[in-house]
Amino acid sequence: MKVLWLAAHPEPRSLNGSLYREGVRSLEEQGHEVRTSDLYAMNFNPVVTADDFTHADGERLIVGRAAQEAVRRGSLAPDITAEHAKLSWADTVIVQFPLWWYGMPAILKGWFDRVFVAGFAFGIHDAQGRQLRYGEGALAGKRAMVVVSAGAREVSLGPRGINGDLNDLLFPLQHGTLWYAGIDVLPPLLVHGADRMDEATYAFHVDALRERLKDLPHTEPLPFRRQNGGDYDDDLVLRPELSPHLTGTAAHYRTES
Amino acid sequence: MKVLWLAAHPEPRSLNGSLYREGVRSLEEQGHEVRTSDLYAMNFNPVVTADDFTHADGERLIVGRAAQEAVRRGSLAPDITAEHAKLSWADTVIVQFPLWWYGMPAILKGWFDRVFVAGFAFGIHDAQGRQLRYGEGALAGKRAMVVVSAGAREVSLGPRGINGDLNDLLFPLQHGTLWYAGIDVLPPLLVHGADRMDEATYAFHVDALRERLKDLPHTEPLPFRRQNGGDYDDDLVLRPELSPHLTGTAAHYRTES
Repeated sequence: MKVLWLAAHPEPRSLNGSLYREGVRSLEEQGHEVRTSDLYAMNFNPVVTADDFTHADGERLIVGRAAQEAVRRGSLAPDITAEHAKLSWADTVIVQFPLWWYGMPAILKGWFDRVFVAGFAFGIHDAQGRQLRYGEGALAGKRAMVVVSAGAREVSLGPRGINGDLNDLLFPLQHGTLWYAGIDVLPPLLVHGADRMDEATYAFHVDALRERLKDLPHTEPLPFRRQNGGDYDDDLVLRPELSPHLTGTAAHYRTES
Repeated sequence: MKVLWLAAHPEPRSLNGSLYREGVRSLEEQGHEVRTSDLYAMNFNPVVTADDFTHADGERLIVGRAAQEAVRRGSLAPDITAEHAKLSWADTVIVQFPLWWYGMPAILKGWFDRVFVAGFAFGIHDAQGRQLRYGEGALAGKRAMVVVSAGAREVSLGPRGINGDLNDLLFPLQHGTLWYAGIDVLPPLLVHGADRMDEATYAFHVDALRERLKDLPHTEPLPFRRQNGGDYDDDLVLRPELSPHLTGTAAHYRTES
């Protein structure tokens, strides 16, 4: 595999820092190639501005349009094109972060805001003029896995836990971003109890991470529905005969039958 | 009312910029006081670092602990304490942004990462040692409303729309951040079709915004369950007799019965 590992913790001596180094080492020991974007170490700028697109001063900025023009002209900011090169090279992406306010740290959210631009990660159409997204698109064929640490206990991030189910909290990233761009998303790895971890628990989580990384090539992705797979009507609403009693995130997983 | 209005769009001449100015004007015309944090105009830094906490160089950074110590010592970075002053002053918070990758732009996510720190927005306990969060806490008594624009059509952000239901996409912000800190959350205002808006549609959305702002003091908040209201067990899992067939975000709304 060719793996791009995204990391987003400010402290290298943290649990996240340790797991990041263990994970990269584990993949390399298995003979995989690894490139990294350790966003804090890179001092990555997460804020979308007109400078991303070499946008003319004084002209009104329409982000999607400016992005597509910049991709076409090859005038995106160099730190964005550097990430595009890594993404294009990779067949697998690991997205590792501590869960801050039930989402990604801003430095990582902004990586997606700035790197997953129109014309690169989406905004592609087929010969029939259909937009290719949610299961198809520019990044189709790649796989991704989220590795996320949280202070909370595991059950409190489960189906009836107070914090919400982890896959629901990650829906904007796993479904709305990765799958939107065509990337298959493997089930996430949750490193729970992250703020009170002893040696034995740490060893448990390192083992779990190594196992997941070893199984990466064979792990079944989350069964999200495809936009152009016939499940949605022209308004992009799930057809009434499919999972008729479901609403919310659960409706967007394929079911057997 | 004393309203803090958070805005997060890079272009003042955008739909978001226009709605921001209309909204502030509308509140002031009604006699309310308004303070603003227009994050792009402020060039707000959204990235948590050791500098936020005047943290000793060379010492391992544990974010939650460093934050609590900095709050206690009064040594948080000045741009954070300036936001704390506005928040403490306000009784109502408007959180306005364009939906980017089904969440907040990084500059706004990082506002919560940096401003909603332990010791200020959470990490408060009652006399019995119970943590006050999800409906109680340091910011209890305040109200908030999300105003969000999206290119998508309204139904595609509805209960069975492909993008996921808006309230599910906003769950990490509305439930996991605002309600976590004790803030009552009013139903969000969605400004849909934002990337192809004509004059008539713009007028429709301005009217809708003005109506919502006029009704703010009387609008019923989303009926999220309280952590210490008896609905959750000691592991913070919803008791089995409550909404027994529900999992996911839907389980965390109170139901009549």
